[in-house]
Amino acid sequence: MRHLISPMDFSVEETNHLLQLAEDIEKDPAKYSHVCAGKKLATLFYEPSTRTRLSFEAAMLNLGGSVLGFSSADSSSAAKGESVADTIRVISSYADIAAMRHPKEGAPYVASLHSGIPVINAGDGGHQHPTQTLTDLLTIHSLKGRLHDLTIGLCGDLKFGRTVHSLINALVRYPNIRFVMISPEELRIPTYIRKEVLDDHNIVYKEVEVLEDVMPELDILYMTRVQRERFFNEEDYIRLKDRYILDTAKMKYARPDMLVLHPLPRVNEISVEVDKDPRAAYFKQAQLGVYARMALIMILLEVEPC
Amino acid sequence: MRHLISPMDFSVEETNHLLQLAEDIEKDPAKYSHVCAGKKLATLFYEPSTRTRLSFEAAMLNLGGSVLGFSSADSSSAAKGESVADTIRVISSYADIAAMRHPKEGAPYVASLHSGIPVINAGDGGHQHPTQTLTDLLTIHSLKGRLHDLTIGLCGDLKFGRTVHSLINALVRYPNIRFVMISPEELRIPTYIRKEVLDDHNIVYKEVEVLEDVMPELDILYMTRVQRERFFNEEDYIRLKDRYILDTAKMKYARPDMLVLHPLPRVNEISVEVDKDPRAAYFKQAQLGVYARMALIMILLEVEPC
Amino acid sequence: MRHLISPMDFSVEETNHLLQLAEDIEKDPAKYSHVCAGKKLATLFYEPSTRTRLSFEAAMLNLGGSVLGFSSADSSSAAKGESVADTIRVISSYADIAAMRHPKEGAPYVASLHSGIPVINAGDGGHQHPTQTLTDLLTIHSLKGRLHDLTIGLCGDLKFGRTVHSLINALVRYPNIRFVMISPEELRIPTYIRKEVLDDHNIVYKEVEVLEDVMPELDILYMTRVQRERFFNEEDYIRLKDRYILDTAKMKYARPDMLVLHPLPRVNEISVEVDKDPRAAYFKQAQLGVYARMALIMILLEVEPC
Repeated sequence: MRHLISPMDFSVEETNHLLQLAEDIEKDPAKYSHVCAGKKLATLFYEPSTRTRLSFEAAMLNLGGSVLGFSSADSSSAAKGESVADTIRVISSYADIAAMRHPKEGAPYVASLHSGIPVINAGDGGHQHPTQTLTDLLTIHSLKGRLHDLTIGLCGDLKFGRTVHSLINALVRYPNIRFVMISPEELRIPTYIRKEVLDDHNIVYKEVEVLEDVMPELDILYMTRVQRERFFNEEDYIRLKDRYILDTAKMKYARPDMLVLHPLPRVNEISVEVDKDPRAAYFKQAQLGVYARMALIMILLEVEPC
Repeated sequence: MRHLISPMDFSVEETNHLLQLAEDIEKDPAKYSHVCAGKKLATLFYEPSTRTRLSFEAAMLNLGGSVLGFSSADSSSAAKGESVADTIRVISSYADIAAMRHPKEGAPYVASLHSGIPVINAGDGGHQHPTQTLTDLLTIHSLKGRLHDLTIGLCGDLKFGRTVHSLINALVRYPNIRFVMISPEELRIPTYIRKEVLDDHNIVYKEVEVLEDVMPELDILYMTRVQRERFFNEEDYIRLKDRYILDTAKMKYARPDMLVLHPLPRVNEISVEVDKDPRAAYFKQAQLGVYARMALIMILLEVEPC
Repeated sequence: MRHLISPMDFSVEETNHLLQLAEDIEKDPAKYSHVCAGKKLATLFYEPSTRTRLSFEAAMLNLGGSVLGFSSADSSSAAKGESVADTIRVISSYADIAAMRHPKEGAPYVASLHSGIPVINAGDGGHQHPTQTLTDLLTIHSLKGRLHDLTIGLCGDLKFGRTVHSLINALVRYPNIRFVMISPEELRIPTYIRKEVLDDHNIVYKEVEVLEDVMPELDILYMTRVQRERFFNEEDYIRLKDRYILDTAKMKYARPDMLVLHPLPRVNEISVEVDKDPRAAYFKQAQLGVYARMALIMILLEVEPC
């Protein structure tokens, strides 16, 4: 039985297979509309996340399956002191596969150790969010046609942003990937990513503070939200949150085929005026997230197209 | 693509078509039990409302579709600062149609401007609640056989009660409608309704303070809840909330074929002893609300009976 | 129309029929996978309870039906002051059967009096939780092959634990049942159970304070959680909660075929090291709870296997 806890749980070959399946689902969704009939997905969200939860639910419903679960810890047995290990053991009798979001790092991993059904990490604290990474890879692959030979700009909160860390980890496995890190000094990528991931893979990268300077180099600009909850004090948040806002003025520096990605939700780090730009791919990205999760559910449940 | 934001979005002809469809659904629900197979309804409830949400969910399930969504803003991305516009753009990839309740007036309208799927306003603040209006029209049409030549009593909170305002707007489009407004001085209908709706349509109406006096004239008595949250202070609420309680004593003044309607939930504005009176139609009204929503979903999704 | 409000609503014969049906469902679930197609279960949870709610939802989905509802009172019309009687009357138009959890004793009973659909009590305050009792009976019957000639140890909070009270009530109807009550002085079973249930049925029982002493006598050891919310002060809770922890050392005193049951969630009253013991039946019990609820839904809806 397979789980998906870290974006790196799947090999490059397995990831490529998933992306191909997702792209086939997008082409012919009717072919997949009953493959999970009679199967149940449990959405175990100890921390609210509408977007991710509903994306999983849409994915399972699109496959003909059904969904049960909870959307916050308040309405779960966790409030009564139950361990994640016990919860997943019981849920294993209720559902065929589970997607778990948890504020504590490692909780989905612990769950997977005690589970009788495949567990998908739907985000654990500031740690990992592998289905976002699969979504990001699918978006790049679908819209650029490749996952190699790319210059990726990563902009915003690179210190706490788990989606950025996971994306770096995933992309360094493909040939000729170059990163441009755009962030304030205070929110630069952590040393362990720099040393253990980038340096170890001999990845070329640079770190800058000004977005406009590097725009012309980028194939992809991955924007991230500066999350209020990551800051120790409100002043730092207010001072930093608006520094890396993408607007139409900055988009003029970008290549005509550059893509703007964002894991969403955005607050104001991308001006709404950019939404009309054909290079704005973040809503398409959300749509592709459903296909990525459909493919993932099929692979973990080992179901085949009808 | 159509949305339903205001009760007036549908013409009289369109409304009549919807009511006919709803009545056919009531007669032969099996004929409609699979028409939305594979379709998904998103219930986006930024403000709790069990009755309305579950009515929508029952409607979609009755049509063979499925449901995803959230039941309060706490468990939504709104808590992270996301705009309604962004949310609906993402939800457009997750579902085929959305029902949105929001505490802010106009939020469902804003959503409809950015949506890729039909949006139904399931109540926006004190503003509008068009599916309640459709339910009210369906109840009157089903049980009285007509929407014209009626004297409608409106009782309770006529100042803040959005269902009353919407019902007035909807009914003035039919011939020979007469209103009797029964409320305390403090909760009389707003001037803009009086001037822009009633006077402009040359509608005959009167305003009274005592319910018993006008009971014998009424074809319909539409009771409303005096909502605690609409009052600025607790004293006003306590003083006014019990003044217009309908009981069996007052029902003796009513015609044998008068109908009592209420949008529910009621607190104590209708005594439970009235429930057994055959003229009490408010639970039937709740039932018809499901058929009204089934018809609405079918029309907006442009699906036909099998 | 039948409801299930108290574990005693079903006669011994009816209970036995339900257990047989549940055991047949476990053997051949595919035979039952569409028997409730087109039927809807409403889960009306005025108090959070993930385990029970999801067990009901899994049960209905396994039968091919669908589910709607709410998982806490915050997101229900109760917050607007609506009575349970009104809520169930409306829900009767939305669903075919309802499962209700409520913090107030008797609420599901009141609901059943006004309901147009079968109501299942999914737990009302410290009062009753009949589907847990059916689950317990099913577990004992499935794993021991009988509900008679058994010595049942009941350990932990016997004063407030409603599952224990219900189980006693249910088991005294079978021949040759003997109880061993293991609890601190402060949490002994209430006098009314002792007098009205045990004495009236001439049931042999004893009350002890030390678990190890009686382990060798037991066919079943039913452990219960010492719930923090049942205590008037935190000190009492801390002093008592750890006194009756089951661990592998204590399990050495037990018979090789003794079963350990627990209604779950557990906090630490059963050490996780016991989970690997083949006599630990509490996760199997949770699984059987789904089958018990499937059988119950079928019986109340009067549906037959296809």
